[in-house]
Amino acid sequence: MARQSNGVSAISRVVMVLDTFSFEAPFLSLSEIAERAGIPMSSAHRIVTELVEHGLLERMPDRSYRVGNRLWEMGSRTPGALGLREIALPYLHAIQSRVRQHTQLLVRSGLDVLVIERLSSRDAVVNASIVGGRTPLQLSSSGIVFLAYSEEDLVPAIVDRGLAPITPSSLRTEQQLRDAVARASVDGYAVSTGWIFEESRGIAVPIRGSQEVIVGTVSVVIPNDDSPVDDLVRLLRLAADGISDALLRSYLPPGHPHARAGGVYRQLVASSDKSMAYFEHLLEEHEAQARAQTAT
Amino acid sequence: MARQSNGVSAISRVVMVLDTFSFEAPFLSLSEIAERAGIPMSSAHRIVTELVEHGLLERMPDRSYRVGNRLWEMGSRTPGALGLREIALPYLHAIQSRVRQHTQLLVRSGLDVLVIERLSSRDAVVNASIVGGRTPLQLSSSGIVFLAYSEEDLVPAIVDRGLAPITPSSLRTEQQLRDAVARASVDGYAVSTGWIFEESRGIAVPIRGSQEVIVGTVSVVIPNDDSPVDDLVRLLRLAADGISDALLRSYLPPGHPHARAGGVYRQLVASSDKSMAYFEHLLEEHEAQARAQTAT
Repeated sequence: MARQSNGVSAISRVVMVLDTFSFEAPFLSLSEIAERAGIPMSSAHRIVTELVEHGLLERMPDRSYRVGNRLWEMGSRTPGALGLREIALPYLHAIQSRVRQHTQLLVRSGLDVLVIERLSSRDAVVNASIVGGRTPLQLSSSGIVFLAYSEEDLVPAIVDRGLAPITPSSLRTEQQLRDAVARASVDGYAVSTGWIFEESRGIAVPIRGSQEVIVGTVSVVIPNDDSPVDDLVRLLRLAADGISDALLRSYLPPGHPHARAGGVYRQLVASSDKSMAYFEHLLEEHEAQARAQTAT
Repeated sequence: MARQSNGVSAISRVVMVLDTFSFEAPFLSLSEIAERAGIPMSSAHRIVTELVEHGLLERMPDRSYRVGNRLWEMGSRTPGALGLREIALPYLHAIQSRVRQHTQLLVRSGLDVLVIERLSSRDAVVNASIVGGRTPLQLSSSGIVFLAYSEEDLVPAIVDRGLAPITPSSLRTEQQLRDAVARASVDGYAVSTGWIFEESRGIAVPIRGSQEVIVGTVSVVIPNDDSPVDDLVRLLRLAADGISDALLRSYLPPGHPHARAGGVYRQLVASSDKSMAYFEHLLEEHEAQARAQTAT
């Protein structure tokens, strides 16, 4: 992209502006955006104006700005987040109806876990998860699962960033982190006991995608009361295996005896059988059009 | 922003590139991106490379690209989509557990409705809704509700774009559209009978935000079988009123006797009571820090 005079590209500036919004600050004034992004007011004004034109930011009646629904709409097109969620959702509900605390679907994003979905009951234990929010890998049972199944050794980078323990129970040394990861590799699940809140405990199992790659985790956050976790782990594994199986069948070519209806939509939508048949039909039309265009 | 030689800004090009991805085509090669966006390969390559650096696109093992989880994460920070969804979700589940077809939460985006959430049962009737997908206002019961409660008359713009009826039951004339909108204004709900699929029917009611503005709709898609809709309308209104009430209490200042716990997070998160209290505490810390910074 064209570099500005100070060497920062236009795309970088857009990302800097969009990154000024957070869960703590969903509404910001123009001067707050400029200050947080560290760019001059005049540049901020130009960028914000154009982002509003495209709907990526929205201007509120009080002249503050928020992230636009258009950005949410664009982001909803990724199979990595929403697609996985659509496939996983019935399984998450099945867990939540049994456990009635917090049930979560997470993916890894760098050295953090990213919350794709969280179901909660009103009287559930305290839990810092927000859909779209992040938690450092070393503070999360899901994070330990990702570390246990990652192809690269991410521990040095985590230690470099700092373990940043929160409670007396949080992991405080590289050795403790490596022990937790080694245990998760053997057990096939991880438990975090009081790492973020003393009264809460997380239990996470991996979701396998194709080629045995771990694409996400299913976890519950429950009271930290020393009760045995075996039944919960079995329940989580059943769900994770169901999601893995549904994911794998989603990637089989249409017509394959084990394929799931819905064509490429299978990675993005889980609707009724009749709706999936309609989406498959849509896709066939779309491909026929593409072929016709190529032929002319 | 800096204009390129052809007068198209960098931000516009980014939007054009991101818009090449769709539900029909979640994975695209570089040449497909360039072709669909109508920009030269060399520009497409530069933009795509930088979007990958920022995680807004992700490169797949087969060298195709998909929209990045990072974009989903940024979009999840808008209170307009995810915030409304978090507040509405328990009500949607309550409807879905009774109706067991499709239950939907929609907002208006220009002349379309945008699907924020959809719950479906496997044996539900055929329905074209995809979370993150759009439907023209005039083809949707929710669209008619938005038209009935909109401050501006959107009908001329819809007629200009074309009514594009799909089935023999779809609205085909401006008069039919105006009649449907007038009926919805009187009834307080709208019914679409076979407008997209002959066998399906939509019923939608408005969700009121502050100052009586309609912020979204709750709808069900059910079989088009002539059965009376009164009970369903009552159920939908109960849910919509519950969501409106929760939304309004979300905007009350902390400490107000009718305020909902959770501070500004109330617009983005609906977790357990203990978790909401934690978020409220986080926000207080965040504001104390901001005050301390201003003071120094």
